[in-house]
Amino acid sequence: MAHIDLGNELPGIRGLMAYRPETAKPLNELVELLLRDDNNTLSRGERELIGTYVSSLNDCFFCQNVHGAFAGYYLHCDIQQIDSIKKDFISTDISGKMKALLSIAGSVQKGGKQVSVEQIEEARNMGATDREIHDTVLIAAAFCMYNRYVDGLATWAPQDRQFYVDRAPVRAAEGYVDYDLYK
Amino acid sequence: MAHIDLGNELPGIRGLMAYRPETAKPLNELVELLLRDDNNTLSRGERELIGTYVSSLNDCFFCQNVHGAFAGYYLHCDIQQIDSIKKDFISTDISGKMKALLSIAGSVQKGGKQVSVEQIEEARNMGATDREIHDTVLIAAAFCMYNRYVDGLATWAPQDRQFYVDRAPVRAAEGYVDYDLYK
Repeated sequence: MAHIDLGNELPGIRGLMAYRPETAKPLNELVELLLRDDNNTLSRGERELIGTYVSSLNDCFFCQNVHGAFAGYYLHCDIQQIDSIKKDFISTDISGKMKALLSIAGSVQKGGKQVSVEQIEEARNMGATDREIHDTVLIAAAFCMYNRYVDGLATWAPQDRQFYVDRAPVRAAEGYVDYDLYK
Repeated sequence: MAHIDLGNELPGIRGLMAYRPETAKPLNELVELLLRDDNNTLSRGERELIGTYVSSLNDCFFCQNVHGAFAGYYLHCDIQQIDSIKKDFISTDISGKMKALLSIAGSVQKGGKQVSVEQIEEARNMGATDREIHDTVLIAAAFCMYNRYVDGLATWAPQDRQFYVDRAPVRAAEGYVDYDLYK
């Protein structure tokens, strides 16, 4: 049960957004821009993967399953492959650029000052642009907010991980801004 | 020097916002709603204090000085009093409700799951409403984002703390949405 009376039975951040639609608006606009906007050289799948990885580091069940399902949908891989990336991305066959960006995201999760000049250089050597580095840092930082919002108010989440996988195609088409909160 | 070429000399989050105005828009709308909107039973000063406290826990020099100056301006207290609250708010003369809310904010900074049922009960016993508890958690979570964004890209910040105090009255009147980024 959530720490406060949300007046609805929606899971995770959806319950919070229905409770306080004023703040939901910029929260959704931000995640839409960061993860879904087409004006970006990182694919939607790559950006969802950054959010998934940070959510797993923050141990947020709802966010890592919602966004892990999106990442799997966009990148055409299954839960097990996403789990492998969350657990030890270095040993997977994702690109060198994505490894460098996930490394930066992992440092941001610990704290902004944990990002080193060497990590930035490595990302550049692997072909990352300044804009891609910027967006990686902001996506990682934003998930440190969303994860804390979801767990800080003790929202509930469906425990069947397949639930998130099954919903991903429809939710991916809807996007983060125009969907019906109560659906 | 920032980790990426921002193309401007603006300090802290302002340099990042000028670099990427698309994401600046929801980031500013969120902080305006959380810290400045009049439809809130927490005063502007109390909300700025929550952001200041979390920024100090995250060791973000720019954010704790910008928002500490705002908090001081609204609450009519000086840097030393704000520093005392950041360092050991329990020993200061802020209200019992604010002590309970800062305690929750401090747990959110560590991680969403750190917030306990006992902390929520204590806040309620001290008169906090569900909406105030919600906003405290979201403000604390949001500053975990803003702080990581500012430090994760290694932005610069004026080192003279009086600089922030001197600017607070004008910036407080401008708000977070309509100001000129390049001023």
